[in-house]
Amino acid sequence: MDNDTIAAISTPIGEGAIGIVRLSGENSIPIVDRLFKSPSGKRLKDAKTHTIHYGHLYNGDTLVEEVMVSVMKGPKTFTREDVVEINCHGGIVSVNRVLETVLANGARLAEPGEFTKRAFMNGRIDLSQAEAIMDLIRAKTDRAMNVALGQMEGRLSRMIRRLRSEILEVLAQVEVNIDYPEYDDVEEMTHHMLKEKALFVKREIRRLLDTARQGKILREGVATVIIGRPNVGKSSLLNSFARENKAIVTDIPGTTRDVIEEYVNIKGVPLKLIDTAGIRETEDTVERIGVERSRKVLKEADLILFVLSNNDEITEEDRALFQMIKGMEAIIVINKTDLSTKINVREVEKLGEGRRIVYTSLMEERGLEQLEDAIASMFFSGEIETDDFTYVSNARHISLLNDALKSADDVLNGIEAGLPVDILQIDMTKIWEILGEITGDTVHDELINQLFSQFCLGK
Amino acid sequence: MDNDTIAAISTPIGEGAIGIVRLSGENSIPIVDRLFKSPSGKRLKDAKTHTIHYGHLYNGDTLVEEVMVSVMKGPKTFTREDVVEINCHGGIVSVNRVLETVLANGARLAEPGEFTKRAFMNGRIDLSQAEAIMDLIRAKTDRAMNVALGQMEGRLSRMIRRLRSEILEVLAQVEVNIDYPEYDDVEEMTHHMLKEKALFVKREIRRLLDTARQGKILREGVATVIIGRPNVGKSSLLNSFARENKAIVTDIPGTTRDVIEEYVNIKGVPLKLIDTAGIRETEDTVERIGVERSRKVLKEADLILFVLSNNDEITEEDRALFQMIKGMEAIIVINKTDLSTKINVREVEKLGEGRRIVYTSLMEERGLEQLEDAIASMFFSGEIETDDFTYVSNARHISLLNDALKSADDVLNGIEAGLPVDILQIDMTKIWEILGEITGDTVHDELINQLFSQFCLGK
Repeated sequence: MDNDTIAAISTPIGEGAIGIVRLSGENSIPIVDRLFKSPSGKRLKDAKTHTIHYGHLYNGDTLVEEVMVSVMKGPKTFTREDVVEINCHGGIVSVNRVLETVLANGARLAEPGEFTKRAFMNGRIDLSQAEAIMDLIRAKTDRAMNVALGQMEGRLSRMIRRLRSEILEVLAQVEVNIDYPEYDDVEEMTHHMLKEKALFVKREIRRLLDTARQGKILREGVATVIIGRPNVGKSSLLNSFARENKAIVTDIPGTTRDVIEEYVNIKGVPLKLIDTAGIRETEDTVERIGVERSRKVLKEADLILFVLSNNDEITEEDRALFQMIKGMEAIIVINKTDLSTKINVREVEKLGEGRRIVYTSLMEERGLEQLEDAIASMFFSGEIETDDFTYVSNARHISLLNDALKSADDVLNGIEAGLPVDILQIDMTKIWEILGEITGDTVHDELINQLFSQFCLGK
Repeated sequence: MDNDTIAAISTPIGEGAIGIVRLSGENSIPIVDRLFKSPSGKRLKDAKTHTIHYGHLYNGDTLVEEVMVSVMKGPKTFTREDVVEINCHGGIVSVNRVLETVLANGARLAEPGEFTKRAFMNGRIDLSQAEAIMDLIRAKTDRAMNVALGQMEGRLSRMIRRLRSEILEVLAQVEVNIDYPEYDDVEEMTHHMLKEKALFVKREIRRLLDTARQGKILREGVATVIIGRPNVGKSSLLNSFARENKAIVTDIPGTTRDVIEEYVNIKGVPLKLIDTAGIRETEDTVERIGVERSRKVLKEADLILFVLSNNDEITEEDRALFQMIKGMEAIIVINKTDLSTKINVREVEKLGEGRRIVYTSLMEERGLEQLEDAIASMFFSGEIETDDFTYVSNARHISLLNDALKSADDVLNGIEAGLPVDILQIDMTKIWEILGEITGDTVHDELINQLFSQFCLGK
């Protein structure tokens, strides 16, 4: 693999107090040393590891920036290589200028995730830990962050490794049995052993997969759409959420402008509010964006918040909306409880088909707490506590666990069908290999390249 | 003043590889030391200054984050106090959690600019240098950054201090003269000396103020509006700019959503494209937003780019637009030179009243270079080189320089009117005081508070 020196901006792009350009590779220190002038004349190449140095960065005679330079020598670094961090005044031009200077002087622009990839390649972390780092950065709530932290600390890796070593143990035992065919019951014994282990593996994988839906929600947020007739209070609901719950991300550069997504944190559940442009600007979403587009947006939603007015009778349009959300997860919000009740609740219950109904008066700021509780309890049953649990949230992990489950079934079916032990061995070994792909113990180059390319720059 | 320990997020908010929480104050090190666990058990309070430490941050028993902690002891720090930087995995939740943890353990949330304010209060930088730091962060182009860097390095401060010391010298000489009234020509001599100095000060201040317009443009960008009839190529022009010139900022969280401003860098001139929603979405801006709103947007503009079609004759609407931009700085762009010429150029010249006309075919990507040259030369006359020059860009500085200029005139008029020397002394002293406000040598508390509150958080 390449061990040339890479560089990238490692802080988010924007106006901030501090911006960092990070370098990793054997020339990190010499490259920055050539550009750096300390007031005392001290040279970075003479610096001890894990020390910080004040000075100025020059490109030839041109002053580039006032900087603090951190020198960290491998192997006790993020990548296990020599790492230099140039800490400059935040600001888009400033950080870019520092990056351009180091690129013009021997460093190569890092690919997305290349620092983390080197940490993986150099054995500092395994693949699921690397993926956890990305999740950590993208975490929208504390809960999601805890899951990522747990995974980064190697919780999932340890579980997977334990399973793999149990599988390896039984495979070794099978080999031993095969080598001593003098015992009469060896085939039966071996079948029994393999069956027990396959059942155990299946149970453990199922347990992990059971956490997957919640893990995915923590990671990506609950795609939520607010629907309802004009003037029932959709915008008020959106605004109440945004006001009461610190909006986590208001606008990420690069996202399209017509469908704005807003993240709000509802008791630990990250709600990704899909705000079709109409919802915010006008009240007549349904008419404006048309039934066709509504259907498309609804199809992408994990949760529908269907707002009705307490002060109106149910209209044909309401019925059409109930029809449209058939089979989807929804909460029915009867708003405007400050006004007189004209809605037929019995009918709402019937149309709602057992869905949770929450009463609010957004104008008088009542009922929002109940709505939030309803949302939270919908996505987190009370018993599960993030702290005790290893969530699986990564689509790649879920898919591998499903594959492993299938192979465990193959083993079990094979035993049932009385297949010879060497065939069963192959399926059992396959489980071991598939699980290894989660931690990166068995893994292909293309996968690694593809995986790290999803990282943000500078990580 | 307060010397309690402050903390803030010092990196821009967003998803990035690294986030930093910075603390400053005498308890910075003990606070973080209590929360930090190093794998080797090493304590931060025993750490040498300017060293970096790997470990984990805990809030009680709860793991908060994997971190790198930089320990820097005063006075060789940004604030001259003890500074600790907690370097964590980027990401909004992660950085916030680290901040919350230190806030819950004895640090106080820093006000915007409070770190820089402490650097000022503790005498590490003067006021104009502090303001330059803010300009540096907000710089939109290399040129703007160089101006800010120059100011931060103390270039403006040195010029102002030189002026002040010259004024002080003459004031001292005046005192001497007053003390020796036995000489006959003392009054005439003193008047002569004061006049010479007042003229000199005036000249120097004028020279600084001459740079102000360009400095302001570098700092804030040229507010630019593209106008023209439907289908002449307004959107193409906007897109060409954005494509050819790396857009510096596409969207800043917190800005209003209906008028999107996009910064593009045109040969060192930051163009702030005021993109009334209509310009991007539809071609019929003028009709849609109406004459009233157009007028309002135009009034805020520093530069109008008026696009005409080479392939059409001039219409009544074009004439109305020419009327609307009377007296404003504008460049006329005749687009679609790939099609046959139907426009009457003579008439455009007449209506344009001597304004620069540039021919483009945006479809064939021709003429954009010429347009960019025209824009650049409009805002930077060739002779001025940023490197040799101290720009004044700050509105506060401009206003103070104008006040000083006025006091210099008072001195000169006073001499003309034969006012007694002690009156002239007062006006001369006033110049000295006013100039001191630029560097912060003479300055009031409220001003300082108001000034630093404009900083970004964490600086």
